[in-house]
Amino acid sequence: MSKLRFRISMSLDGYVAGPNQSVDNPLGIGGMRLHEWVFPLAVFRTMHGMEGGIVNENTAVIKESFANIGATIMGRNMFGGHPGAWNQEKPWNGWWGDNPPFHHPVFVLTHHAREPLILEGGTTFTFVTGGINAALEQARSAAAGKDVALGGGAHAAQQYLAAGLVDEMLISLAPTLLGSGERLFDGIGDDMHGLTLVRTIATPEVVHLKFAKH
Amino acid sequence: MSKLRFRISMSLDGYVAGPNQSVDNPLGIGGMRLHEWVFPLAVFRTMHGMEGGIVNENTAVIKESFANIGATIMGRNMFGGHPGAWNQEKPWNGWWGDNPPFHHPVFVLTHHAREPLILEGGTTFTFVTGGINAALEQARSAAAGKDVALGGGAHAAQQYLAAGLVDEMLISLAPTLLGSGERLFDGIGDDMHGLTLVRTIATPEVVHLKFAKH
Repeated sequence: MSKLRFRISMSLDGYVAGPNQSVDNPLGIGGMRLHEWVFPLAVFRTMHGMEGGIVNENTAVIKESFANIGATIMGRNMFGGHPGAWNQEKPWNGWWGDNPPFHHPVFVLTHHAREPLILEGGTTFTFVTGGINAALEQARSAAAGKDVALGGGAHAAQQYLAAGLVDEMLISLAPTLLGSGERLFDGIGDDMHGLTLVRTIATPEVVHLKFAKH
Repeated sequence: MSKLRFRISMSLDGYVAGPNQSVDNPLGIGGMRLHEWVFPLAVFRTMHGMEGGIVNENTAVIKESFANIGATIMGRNMFGGHPGAWNQEKPWNGWWGDNPPFHHPVFVLTHHAREPLILEGGTTFTFVTGGINAALEQARSAAAGKDVALGGGAHAAQQYLAAGLVDEMLISLAPTLLGSGERLFDGIGDDMHGLTLVRTIATPEVVHLKFAKH
């Protein structure tokens, strides 16, 4: 069966976003520091329609995390914006612009029903109000045999982790402190929900901890 | 000048002790999981007067963390017990038994003055009520040119980190979740206090992240 694979960048003190998240600052104060390792990479720049960039040990990790992914699940905050914005004349398209970097079906967990959003480059956003199992079922079906990526944020990840549905988890640990914000592992208890550390790739900028089902 | 070097084991969700710490369970519920990687090591067993044990990649990390240390600083909780116990007929000797594994002067941060405690094997506990700078000064003097180890717990570490006094920090990250307890990086803000990731040693049981002053 296709796997549910979760990758996220986290600070040394466990945050995946800084405090005071807003439309202008979707990652919260300091949150960009979690992702600094990825921006210079050629593989990232290409994905976002830019030229240039570098190749280093992180390149293979990023490539692996996108390989064999047929659909993505994300929480409403990661799609972007508050539901109020969805009711405006031109509906809010999230953070992702007109040509999002997914190029496959994306399923957004939300309590607010909305028509699917079909964007350029093969990305569609489907809004799922039926909960995490319904979203996973739809995503697996859409992935047509490939794996499903779980994109975050923390709240979506916590629900899938607590339910034991995550098959692979890749924590890209940024050696920085955010001090406050959104913690990845809040409220999911004291066990690893079936996951074990299976591989570590260390670079000067970030340490990638890969966990998988026993 | 001699360095202040801090080593501690921390869970993936940032805890250095579990909840409900007590005399019977000084590391809190689940806290032993943070240290499971160290117990089988021959270097650890020898240090605690036991025979046997194994040698693996963690051996060198432990040896390095004890090399060139002339004195140790710890918080009152790591020494062990509540000050009430100190007033009994036979004063409480902490968690460490009659022959503690330090074999050098140890300085305990406390608000409760107490006579020094001289134990077997070269370990003395000196109780410092003058705060972190006074303790560091005394420890550096006692170390006679060697480095000073900062042993924890979290509260003692937070004070030295916030003051920018830690020269080296080795986080032994255990791939487990504790869910609650004592967090290492609470209340010290959103910067690394002069520390940068300089080396990672990854093993299947634990990932050692070494930070040093710029």
